Amino acid sequence: MLTAPILSPSPPSSSTAAAFPIVTSRSATYAIPIPFTKSRRIRNLPVRVQIASSSSPPMIEKETPESQRPHTFLREASDSATSARARFEKMIRDAQDSVCAAIEAVDQGGKFKEDVWSRPGGGGGISRVLQDGAVWEKAGVNVSVVYGLMPPEAYRAANPTSAGADESTKPGPVPFFAAGISSVLHPKNPFAPTLHFNYRYFETDAPKDATGAPRQWWFGGGTDLTPSYIFEEDVKHFHSVQKLACDKFDPSFYPRFKKWCDDYFYIKHRGERRGLGGIFFDDLNNYDQEMLLSFATECANSVIPAYIPIIEKRKDTPFTEQHKAWQQLRRGRYVEFNLVYDRGTTFGLKTGGRIESILVSLPLTARWEYDHQPEEGSEEWKLLDACINPKEWISNN
Amino acid sequence: MLTAPILSPSPPSSSTAAAFPIVTSRSATYAIPIPFTKSRRIRNLPVRVQIASSSSPPMIEKETPESQRPHTFLREASDSATSARARFEKMIRDAQDSVCAAIEAVDQGGKFKEDVWSRPGGGGGISRVLQDGAVWEKAGVNVSVVYGLMPPEAYRAANPTSAGADESTKPGPVPFFAAGISSVLHPKNPFAPTLHFNYRYFETDAPKDATGAPRQWWFGGGTDLTPSYIFEEDVKHFHSVQKLACDKFDPSFYPRFKKWCDDYFYIKHRGERRGLGGIFFDDLNNYDQEMLLSFATECANSVIPAYIPIIEKRKDTPFTEQHKAWQQLRRGRYVEFNLVYDRGTTFGLKTGGRIESILVSLPLTARWEYDHQPEEGSEEWKLLDACINPKEWISNN
Repeated sequence: MLTAPILSPSPPSSSTAAAFPIVTSRSATYAIPIPFTKSRRIRNLPVRVQIASSSSPPMIEKETPESQRPHTFLREASDSATSARARFEKMIRDAQDSVCAAIEAVDQGGKFKEDVWSRPGGGGGISRVLQDGAVWEKAGVNVSVVYGLMPPEAYRAANPTSAGADESTKPGPVPFFAAGISSVLHPKNPFAPTLHFNYRYFETDAPKDATGAPRQWWFGGGTDLTPSYIFEEDVKHFHSVQKLACDKFDPSFYPRFKKWCDDYFYIKHRGERRGLGGIFFDDLNNYDQEMLLSFATECANSVIPAYIPIIEKRKDTPFTEQHKAWQQLRRGRYVEFNLVYDRGTTFGLKTGGRIESILVSLPLTARWEYDHQPEEGSEEWKLLDACINPKEWISNN
Repeated sequence: MLTAPILSPSPPSSSTAAAFPIVTSRSATYAIPIPFTKSRRIRNLPVRVQIASSSSPPMIEKETPESQRPHTFLREASDSATSARARFEKMIRDAQDSVCAAIEAVDQGGKFKEDVWSRPGGGGGISRVLQDGAVWEKAGVNVSVVYGLMPPEAYRAANPTSAGADESTKPGPVPFFAAGISSVLHPKNPFAPTLHFNYRYFETDAPKDATGAPRQWWFGGGTDLTPSYIFEEDVKHFHSVQKLACDKFDPSFYPRFKKWCDDYFYIKHRGERRGLGGIFFDDLNNYDQEMLLSFATECANSVIPAYIPIIEKRKDTPFTEQHKAWQQLRRGRYVEFNLVYDRGTTFGLKTGGRIESILVSLPLTARWEYDHQPEEGSEEWKLLDACINPKEWISNN
């Protein structure tokens, strides 16, 4: 168990919170939860005293709220505008702008509320949340840039070429950089699906004193769809857009990342996936870096064409109380996955990250009925069946 | 990490599920989640295939549904009617009957649905759930009796006198017995509080081949109140009844168990308790066994006088949508505690317990708003303040 003051090991994640704090290596993952204080609000709150515990994970230093979005969250001195870092940051900020604009244009009612913050040592983020809109009950789209230090043990584990270094040449903590976009969009209409997407880029410096330890980088992310009712044309459209994005780069990507997605979003105690999947990948670095940057960009740019047409089609579909109750039960499953299994969420909660950013992925409302079982052959049963037995929605040819 | 086929280590618990599966020793805890198959329903469900994983905790063998409640779940041969086991089982079954009767009498609408089950090797349980009543939206009252085997390592850890035994005299698995009652009652009216209570008794046999290893027993449990709004007279009444029950046995009980309760039901990532506490204790065996059996009985018998008068007073109080929304936000906190922190729930989910029994503790509905902060000095703020800074509701004299 690592006890570094800033970083602790954590598995990869796909939560909304994850884009900010979680960065992964090929065999180890580190998280920097992002606390956030809004002094104008905290002032009015009851005093909170943290219960001390010897087994507490490290608490993270506070972020500083900013009144304006900076041009970049990068440390200007070290990161040129043409670096992968700079281009990834630009990509996720552009994606945040375009997704938020698309959401507001369809919603025609709700507006995103923005919170900007920075950290004294560099990095920062922009959180945007639209709540109680005309179409979406809760939509969060967040970007962040994090500079941190990784314990050297973890770096060596991630990097076999330096694993043999003896104690006398033990390097110090390894600086890393992480940037990501993460979003969960929960519509009101039970026939309109929830969408989650998350794309992140990670780099480590080479440790100063470690012979043969190279600089490392990798990509992670995914986009997945969680409907309460299946419209086969919608699910096919969604998966087709994911496959199209994948196929531009490698024919193996879609089938591999589709299965990875089905495996990751598994609610084990239910024997169900939380939804109908999409694509998910992590620790990706065994391809050309430029190619993967383009791939992540393509995936992020595919969010609007994959999702918005489905929402346009379903947002005004008439529904009954029963349809809404079923959507609420499925939202309960969403809560179960995120609080019990999602590795970014569970780690973020334990390390004192900014709770509101981490839990913005939870739906506005959810429901749990005792022993609810849909009638065989019903539309609800069909959705449940597809969550239990993942389907191939489109041909892999 | 223990890998016994039936049992795995788990911390003590206070969930609804916990009364059944969780049994604790002074320094280690074991759980036997209780699977449950209703063949008439499962028949209609989509086929579920468990994803295999080498790191999966042990899965537990299925329970058998029963059409009738047996006179006792004890193995008749080994447990006489005057044993602590038999008297504890009678106590929890009587308490289940009387609490369910009191709930139905006040509800005047909802009726409890009962599920009875047994295990081939002895033991079983009775689950009762009232859903969508006139007063309660979800009320679960469950009892169970479990016979199991504890890995000998754990027994030795729990029992210093046999810790020095060398490998040649290593005893086999230690048989244990556990019985408990567990309940969560969620009313509809936002001014009527949620109640949780749980009382359990645990025994181990002495290991056959371990010299000097005695038979062990202990008690655990508690009763706690989770309102959305504070009526000071209600909270004082509730705590007074708990103190009265405690004071009949030991003047140190109420202050100790009140603090234990505040510490256990702590939602760390929020810096809040889930409610206004009550009493909680675990691993209790350093008193006379008869005295502790009487104490647990007194506590269980105090549930009705502590809770029902509050419900009678608040069940018809007029409320607004805002009151209901705040109750729903607090229900969200209940979900967060149970899914993230409650040790019985989290362990039960991982080991394949009967999900519906474990998650009956979750409210029917819950809500999460981004960055919700009650106005300073409001009734909502006062509740939040009392959850953040636990109060002494009654004098300890």
